[in-house]
Amino acid sequence: MNGKLTPISFSEKFSNFSEQWSPKVIAEMNDYQFKLVRLEGDFVWHQHENTDETFIVLEGSIAIDFEDATVELEAGQLLVVPRGVMHRPRAASEAKVLLVEPRGVINTGQADSALTAPIDRWI
Amino acid sequence: MNGKLTPISFSEKFSNFSEQWSPKVIAEMNDYQFKLVRLEGDFVWHQHENTDETFIVLEGSIAIDFEDATVELEAGQLLVVPRGVMHRPRAASEAKVLLVEPRGVINTGQADSALTAPIDRWI
Repeated sequence: MNGKLTPISFSEKFSNFSEQWSPKVIAEMNDYQFKLVRLEGDFVWHQHENTDETFIVLEGSIAIDFEDATVELEAGQLLVVPRGVMHRPRAASEAKVLLVEPRGVINTGQADSALTAPIDRWI
Repeated sequence: MNGKLTPISFSEKFSNFSEQWSPKVIAEMNDYQFKLVRLEGDFVWHQHENTDETFIVLEGSIAIDFEDATVELEAGQLLVVPRGVMHRPRAASEAKVLLVEPRGVINTGQADSALTAPIDRWI
């Protein structure tokens, strides 16, 4: 149990990787995961058929395009993208984001993309 | 859907309440909730039998006492308290915390306490 009871620092975890669009797992709660990701540029349009997905911006700002709107998110803001809703995250300059979603979610959802990242990469 | 696709600002939501130890729901992801809470002083010893519970410190610092250790957490840090583990959050001065846990979790767990807060209080 002691290993689990260590505080997890976002900034320390971010210092361990520089890849963008490649979510890294930092903690699990029940069957949900907390993942850190660096975003820059445009991601692919995709959706997650079976789950909502939470974005919490820790540093910088991002936009999430939806089919009929764009939501701008800055540090200290949260957005839950509902399941089955097409969306495209993007960031004009590098932003740091905390994702919360069930274990096993693939970053590009249903989309076949070069940006598909491996799941369950812990740092 | 549009109502859901509005960014949720932690600081704006905190400006809507001043009570301590009374988690306010700001968003739901599947059957999980994100709750903001102001902590100051000592909470009660308690545990949540059926679920892990995540603490993310947004401002200030807190301590969480366990039966055999104390974990200090500051802004930008996260801790998952495993299910069934007795713990007591406390804060020397007011701290602002984001909790992530399944819908319906009672703040004092199994403990019978004057600090038991109503669930599902949205702000």
